[in-house]
Amino acid sequence: MPLSAEKPPSATPQDHLDAVTKLLAKQRLVEDLVHRQLKGDAARNEVVESIVHKHNLVELQRRLDGLHPADVAFILEGLPLEDRVVVWGLVRSDRDGEILLEVSDAVRDTLLADMDSAEIVAAAQNLDADEIADLASDLPDEVVQDIIEAQDVHERAQLQSALSYPEGSVGALMDFEVVSIREDVTCEVALRYLRRYDELPGQTDALFVVDRDDHLRGILPLKRLLVSDPDDEVASLIERNVVSFSPDSDAEEAAQAFERYDLVCAPVVSADGRVIARLTVDAVLDFVRERQESQVLGKVGLREEEDLFSSVWLSAKNRGPWLALNLCTALIASRVVGAFEGSIEKLAALAALMPIVAGIGGNSGNQTATLIVRALAFDQVSAANARRLLAKELGISALNGAIWGSVLGIVAWLLYRNVALGGVMALAMMLNLVVAALAGLFIPLAMERFGRDPAIGSSVFLTFVTDSMGFFIFLGLATVFLL
Amino acid sequence: MPLSAEKPPSATPQDHLDAVTKLLAKQRLVEDLVHRQLKGDAARNEVVESIVHKHNLVELQRRLDGLHPADVAFILEGLPLEDRVVVWGLVRSDRDGEILLEVSDAVRDTLLADMDSAEIVAAAQNLDADEIADLASDLPDEVVQDIIEAQDVHERAQLQSALSYPEGSVGALMDFEVVSIREDVTCEVALRYLRRYDELPGQTDALFVVDRDDHLRGILPLKRLLVSDPDDEVASLIERNVVSFSPDSDAEEAAQAFERYDLVCAPVVSADGRVIARLTVDAVLDFVRERQESQVLGKVGLREEEDLFSSVWLSAKNRGPWLALNLCTALIASRVVGAFEGSIEKLAALAALMPIVAGIGGNSGNQTATLIVRALAFDQVSAANARRLLAKELGISALNGAIWGSVLGIVAWLLYRNVALGGVMALAMMLNLVVAALAGLFIPLAMERFGRDPAIGSSVFLTFVTDSMGFFIFLGLATVFLL
Repeated sequence: MPLSAEKPPSATPQDHLDAVTKLLAKQRLVEDLVHRQLKGDAARNEVVESIVHKHNLVELQRRLDGLHPADVAFILEGLPLEDRVVVWGLVRSDRDGEILLEVSDAVRDTLLADMDSAEIVAAAQNLDADEIADLASDLPDEVVQDIIEAQDVHERAQLQSALSYPEGSVGALMDFEVVSIREDVTCEVALRYLRRYDELPGQTDALFVVDRDDHLRGILPLKRLLVSDPDDEVASLIERNVVSFSPDSDAEEAAQAFERYDLVCAPVVSADGRVIARLTVDAVLDFVRERQESQVLGKVGLREEEDLFSSVWLSAKNRGPWLALNLCTALIASRVVGAFEGSIEKLAALAALMPIVAGIGGNSGNQTATLIVRALAFDQVSAANARRLLAKELGISALNGAIWGSVLGIVAWLLYRNVALGGVMALAMMLNLVVAALAGLFIPLAMERFGRDPAIGSSVFLTFVTDSMGFFIFLGLATVFLL
Repeated sequence: MPLSAEKPPSATPQDHLDAVTKLLAKQRLVEDLVHRQLKGDAARNEVVESIVHKHNLVELQRRLDGLHPADVAFILEGLPLEDRVVVWGLVRSDRDGEILLEVSDAVRDTLLADMDSAEIVAAAQNLDADEIADLASDLPDEVVQDIIEAQDVHERAQLQSALSYPEGSVGALMDFEVVSIREDVTCEVALRYLRRYDELPGQTDALFVVDRDDHLRGILPLKRLLVSDPDDEVASLIERNVVSFSPDSDAEEAAQAFERYDLVCAPVVSADGRVIARLTVDAVLDFVRERQESQVLGKVGLREEEDLFSSVWLSAKNRGPWLALNLCTALIASRVVGAFEGSIEKLAALAALMPIVAGIGGNSGNQTATLIVRALAFDQVSAANARRLLAKELGISALNGAIWGSVLGIVAWLLYRNVALGGVMALAMMLNLVVAALAGLFIPLAMERFGRDPAIGSSVFLTFVTDSMGFFIFLGLATVFLL
């Protein structure tokens, strides 16, 4: 992204949002007054309104122009749709592109809906290839085609390269602002070369050192170049053991490497070792945060990021499939209970106690699954330690089952003055915790094996197993021993 | 951290872990063989064993010495306790400190348990003040005292400053490797000043420009310094609108600023405007990841990070309180059902259907709560839009309630050939989804108000409400209309 002239603020983004909201409210109030007091005097009405309107809008526009694109994005996200469109209309059109990049997907859709193709193509002109690629998935195909055609040859090649990598790969995060030098020059020459730039690209903490064919030879950290003698050879300062990525690398693994080695910027090289792009820590940080959010949302079945002000209809559509899925699993679990209706008629206490057995199983299983998902993410589960993990989880569930099963058994005994019921309760609890441990271990492993994200889908399967099995074990034992 | 000579690897950390595991297994195998074959020949046994032992350990040690501290940390985390202690004993003692910094809390405890006070104090000697502060919470007070006393005056002041800020504040993340210059010099002079360093601190993308009293005047980005003419005045290149933090600032807000403005390094200033430290993107990235993990773990009641190889006993202790809490809420919900045992005896179908009403309420409420928690984290919930959010959530729950309530009502009707039961089911479902929307909205808001992290505790309260109310509404309606 070409660095915008607008400065990061000293006030917080929340302050700006409040100020904009106030301005919008003031404007609406004045419009209202004008409408009410001057009813009937249409001509005068129009004149006054247009003056007041202009005054407020000019103030709003001046404020927006002074803000960092990320702060404008924050404001747009914090406003209901009708206000958002007003503010979006006031944004200078040469800033449209960089602001579109910063807003969330849901809000971006509402902004794009307010632009025609020509405006979108124009906005893209101010963006780099990797940035256009980020937007492309939200744009109609013919607009993307128009944008590609509006690029020059060099940019078009970059754009097509950026568009060709799937989400979650390094290729989707990389940018093309590579600064590279040759190793057979002195620092003096390298510095003179750098002075031809107006300013180096952001997040540049090292120059990539390449040979005549752009093969990566190493990097020259700026922190070393800056303290070097101008007559030193670049070759003598070079760092040859470099963390680099392929555009096909998994972005999550790249993010872990950035964390592990405290990287700011790393080369992305093609299969034949040529530097084709770079990966920077700001893209990595955004990726980590977005992935975190999509997992948090995915856990409760929210596929798309939902805008705080999305319509009821869109939101219900976003949330519905998850409820439907859970409805199906709950119905199956319900049929397990249905099979024991005869037992429940005879001893209604079973109906009161069975949700406890099922629920605690779910809680315990989710603990196991959460730890396994985490270990999977860090590549810490191997065939070698899987057996050990199984033994550990079974041990914990047996211990917790003995403790909490006994507690619950005693409670059931005291509540219903029925020792046998207490015994069945304790036993069912222990068994269901063992089931939960097995499910918590194997469900995430199976999902990983089948290429699904275990962080997102494990919970619904797990709860299904612990509910159904909890009901079955408890009601089954009760039917055998109590009736 | 003084930059270690060890290079980041070309092989992945997982490769290293596999290699180490193999070496350890080989050694154990050889030891076993020696023991078995030479039983009785104690003297020879000892000699052979010690030679084999040494050979393997030397190879292991050489491998460890060549690895980046973060990779050694990864290996230590991936090994069971007995192997971990062997590897830890082979690590060069001057690297102990930086490796302790990299391992997870749970693993750090096991490594520290293997060191005596003198070793810990020696390890701390190789660390910077902010790094020692990171370790301090895991160390006994008297060891921390010894470490403080072993520092020189300047470092001691920094260490005491770093120790004084709570977790979650910028003060706990900042470091003291500030490079600052004065504005009334030329770039030539600034560069000459920089050459007095062996190498600039990592993550330095700008010099802090200060006045005579260390008050922050702006920053000089290296990307600008590098392309400037040596005769330019620093003052003419300075960036005056700077994002800076107070050590008391909330770390989460600082992390959001780093993301928003793509920062690499930012000054931390005292209340009177003096530069006292800096915050770097690597610390921010670690913070974001750690916070994310503690929330993921916290959601299932895992307070401490649990090591994959923790003992059964420690793990059960870590997981027990959560199960106990859920046991209490489940017991209360169970008493709600208990109050309707009379109705259930008459119509056992109620027992089979009631978990569905309760469960879908929990699913739906968790969707709402997740979105609210997310909006709270980004400061997007205000008094102004709370009413709008309420209306939206109620609308969605009414819509979803009508849809899925009808579906479920029809299923119940068909299953039990009982129209009235179907009607009660549909109505209960709708009402419980409304309850779920209210609970999903107000529980996170209340937790935020009372200073608790809504991301962690909301779910257990929410499930309690949707379970209890789901049972109450469904069984209550059934008792009134069906019996």
